[in-house]
Amino acid sequence: MTDRVYNFSAGPAALPAHVLQQAADEMLNYKGTGMSVMELSHRSPAYDEIHTNAEKNLRELMQIPANYKILFLQGGASQQFAAVPLNLLNKSGKADYINTGAWSKKAAAQAKAYGDIRFTATSEEKNFTFIPVVEKQDFREDADYVHITTNNTIFGTVFNQLPDTGDIPLVADMSSNILSEPIDVSKFGIIYAGAQKNIGPAGLTVVIVREDLIGQARPETPIMLNYKTQADADSLYNTPPTYAIYMAGLVFADLLKKGGLEKVGEINRRKAAALYDYIDASDFYSSPVNPEDRSLMNVPFVLADAELDKAFLTEAEANGLVNLKGHRSVGGMRASIYNAMPEEGVAKLVDFMKEFAAKHTA
Amino acid sequence: MTDRVYNFSAGPAALPAHVLQQAADEMLNYKGTGMSVMELSHRSPAYDEIHTNAEKNLRELMQIPANYKILFLQGGASQQFAAVPLNLLNKSGKADYINTGAWSKKAAAQAKAYGDIRFTATSEEKNFTFIPVVEKQDFREDADYVHITTNNTIFGTVFNQLPDTGDIPLVADMSSNILSEPIDVSKFGIIYAGAQKNIGPAGLTVVIVREDLIGQARPETPIMLNYKTQADADSLYNTPPTYAIYMAGLVFADLLKKGGLEKVGEINRRKAAALYDYIDASDFYSSPVNPEDRSLMNVPFVLADAELDKAFLTEAEANGLVNLKGHRSVGGMRASIYNAMPEEGVAKLVDFMKEFAAKHTA
Repeated sequence: MTDRVYNFSAGPAALPAHVLQQAADEMLNYKGTGMSVMELSHRSPAYDEIHTNAEKNLRELMQIPANYKILFLQGGASQQFAAVPLNLLNKSGKADYINTGAWSKKAAAQAKAYGDIRFTATSEEKNFTFIPVVEKQDFREDADYVHITTNNTIFGTVFNQLPDTGDIPLVADMSSNILSEPIDVSKFGIIYAGAQKNIGPAGLTVVIVREDLIGQARPETPIMLNYKTQADADSLYNTPPTYAIYMAGLVFADLLKKGGLEKVGEINRRKAAALYDYIDASDFYSSPVNPEDRSLMNVPFVLADAELDKAFLTEAEANGLVNLKGHRSVGGMRASIYNAMPEEGVAKLVDFMKEFAAKHTA
Repeated sequence: MTDRVYNFSAGPAALPAHVLQQAADEMLNYKGTGMSVMELSHRSPAYDEIHTNAEKNLRELMQIPANYKILFLQGGASQQFAAVPLNLLNKSGKADYINTGAWSKKAAAQAKAYGDIRFTATSEEKNFTFIPVVEKQDFREDADYVHITTNNTIFGTVFNQLPDTGDIPLVADMSSNILSEPIDVSKFGIIYAGAQKNIGPAGLTVVIVREDLIGQARPETPIMLNYKTQADADSLYNTPPTYAIYMAGLVFADLLKKGGLEKVGEINRRKAAALYDYIDASDFYSSPVNPEDRSLMNVPFVLADAELDKAFLTEAEANGLVNLKGHRSVGGMRASIYNAMPEEGVAKLVDFMKEFAAKHTA
């Protein structure tokens, strides 16, 4: 494993090496079945155990209350951008969105096909470098739901305080910070997340939905996008993405073994602090993000001299630190330090940043 | 690999052992990237090569004409049951379906949410043991499309002759016989298939769509289900199921190396003949399916004495022949002998069937 790199990709992102090793070891013969997990019927006892344990472990990890269903779906967060309004826009047909970046905008744009969608607040005027403060009275009181993107992968911001929506269900795209620390699931109506950051491989979407929000989908809702279909069938209405669920299950078990999300959150806070503290102390690097709204998962930073960006990336890669290029909407660099990025990886990045700064400041 | 079994599952189904071995070998470090394929960004050059080659190799294998797009999607055939009418029911709002089994019925039931759907013909009165003959004049001439299920996984039938639909686009759910032998893609408007039988792991859906059928989706179509979204973005509108596409790519390359679909079809015909010939010659076993309509992929058969079913399954499993239980709608046994089932596996099954019959006839 010495030839493995530190992968700072925003997603699909790094997975724990020992989890990948287990998957490799079990590839041709899963627990004496004589088959790969990929070859197991989704109706077989061996797969049923995988599916059930993945769900049980996720419930334990996130302390998901009993009145929430866990769905293992396909299509990514982008498909949920349609599924959410199709399932929830069923009373006033109105929903309020908070615009904190490219993904919020896409979510709202898709929802507009099905109802009256309004941005209650936006941080676009400052290139999404902060999280707007929204009061309860800012929301339309008859809105069917309020939608937020809890962590903004591109811009490196996070909702540290959830907006108070009163009785209006709060729906969250949590793709890039789910499982990064404990959260209170009971504050949400729906949480959804693409797997490819903190959960597992691309091709799996986790949806956690409060039971009272299931069963009133709009008539044009495709059967596969109706939460009722999937909840009633325990995500086995048709063949689910079995291998991705297996990998996610390995990740969930690993996080529980590590001590759960309290412990994971502590590690993530240490990792983020190591990086932000150095950036803030440095004249060579800076963070464009409002300090109170900084993400623990995605850390964008810029070099004082953008002319050095290319050299930074090339030298970082030569040091086994890859995928640090920032998104074009922000420029500079972005270090995505999801759960699978070990503290050593962040320490190595900070060391490299120091060396690079010293070399180019001399 | 001596502990591997012969897996006759209807799907998710067997994959070639050497393909699984390659996946295991590359799990922690794909081609010197220092990362698993699961960890590659879907925008990276390494993944781009996987994606592009998978598409190129599928095009070559199936001789897909240049005016057809290949889409790598999610959600399974069941999601296409909605995507097809959402994309194609745009002129008369009518579509004609041929009812050859449970999956045709589900496809039609979903389509009814969006238009005027009619069964032109059905084989339900004989428990779907045959493929109905349909003439061109049986279809409504203003139908937006005609839908068939080319191979019926549960009932073991296959369309050996495609219906003549004239200028009406023919749409086919080919989930359980795609890649089993050469077909003339130009006869179809759309071909779609869940991956988990002949293509790769569950969680990938291949859609092959004629370009003139793209771009006129109904207004309620979710962005992710609109073929135009996916075609314009080369299936990279959002993060695709990268690992499943990688596995499918390994399978496509393997089939090309084997000599392509002509050669694969020859092997499949030999496998099916070995099984059907023995069943037809036996008094102990019988096939419920009309001889002219028998599938090369799914071979249901019943024992003369259903009381012996349990013993058959138990003894078969002890001999490393697994997942032979028939679907409850047919009863008895079903041997799914997709591409990855080697001729030795079928020979071993026939030998076992002979021994079992001899023992229980004595």
